Amino acid sequence: MDITEETLVANRDYTRRFTFGNLAMPPSRHLAVLACMDARLTVEQLLGLKTGEAHIIRNAGGLATEDALRSLIISHHLLGTKEFIIINHTDCGMLTFKDEELKRRLVKQTGKEAETPLHFHAFTDLERNVREQVQKVKSHPWLPGNIPVRGFIYDVKTGKLEEVHTTTAEPAARR
Amino acid sequence: MDITEETLVANRDYTRRFTFGNLAMPPSRHLAVLACMDARLTVEQLLGLKTGEAHIIRNAGGLATEDALRSLIISHHLLGTKEFIIINHTDCGMLTFKDEELKRRLVKQTGKEAETPLHFHAFTDLERNVREQVQKVKSHPWLPGNIPVRGFIYDVKTGKLEEVHTTTAEPAARR
Repeated sequence: MDITEETLVANRDYTRRFTFGNLAMPPSRHLAVLACMDARLTVEQLLGLKTGEAHIIRNAGGLATEDALRSLIISHHLLGTKEFIIINHTDCGMLTFKDEELKRRLVKQTGKEAETPLHFHAFTDLERNVREQVQKVKSHPWLPGNIPVRGFIYDVKTGKLEEVHTTTAEPAARR
Repeated sequence: MDITEETLVANRDYTRRFTFGNLAMPPSRHLAVLACMDARLTVEQLLGLKTGEAHIIRNAGGLATEDALRSLIISHHLLGTKEFIIINHTDCGMLTFKDEELKRRLVKQTGKEAETPLHFHAFTDLERNVREQVQKVKSHPWLPGNIPVRGFIYDVKTGKLEEVHTTTAEPAARR
């Protein structure tokens, strides 16, 4: 049996214990989380969130891409979320390659060019990356500048979240 | 106490029970899931997935956007996933608005234009939307055409996944 079939068996079991049929569409704790897709992050569990409480947006890296911003704007303006959390993590796959290398490899392996994605967004400095994502969200013209946006690094060895503080202005030379 | 602070208290509790410190980076069940950000979908639970088993990619709608394709390409080529599942759901917020209406509202409310997102990707037909996302993934030049990609609609009232079959060719006139 392939994995998809196994998940469908698990889903049938899930429906037998299902108690969430009356939840409303807007997240009850008015929270949206943007996190990496990494399998070691079970986002709801590591934040103590229950079904119905928060929007969960995930992609490779936990990046404030155009698509993640689209999701956050919908989350805030249509569904009333009022706090955002961004989570990157140690040992991230995005730290292990360079965009251009991966592109060359894919073109060679498949024999095909692709129009999208234009970028893979690999990065080298985890803390700086978190700061940049927070800044992208805070500065978007369609998101309120005063919405709380806090950035964290999740340690995959300990399960602990460490905040990346963004209040201290970084000298331009360091960026 | 705000919600973010509450999640940090919950995370400290999570670390005390943490047993996942030895998980490897690649998902152990070689699965990637693309699903909507909706708060009523706790993706790992509804599929019976444990921490470390699958990549979870989520955005508003559960759409195969450029960013989701970026994540799936990284998932497959760098981290070895071999099956993809796409999950949309009943009562989705993306069925409740039109892109142009939302854009006008945001420009009026904030007094600002925005360069991105270019589109919000609202849709009107849930089944067709799932089929289109499956097709986008299957036809991407950098993803193997033979990778299993199955699409589902999650019923938020029952917790049940229903497959959207894509094998029957749709007449062009219906599209």
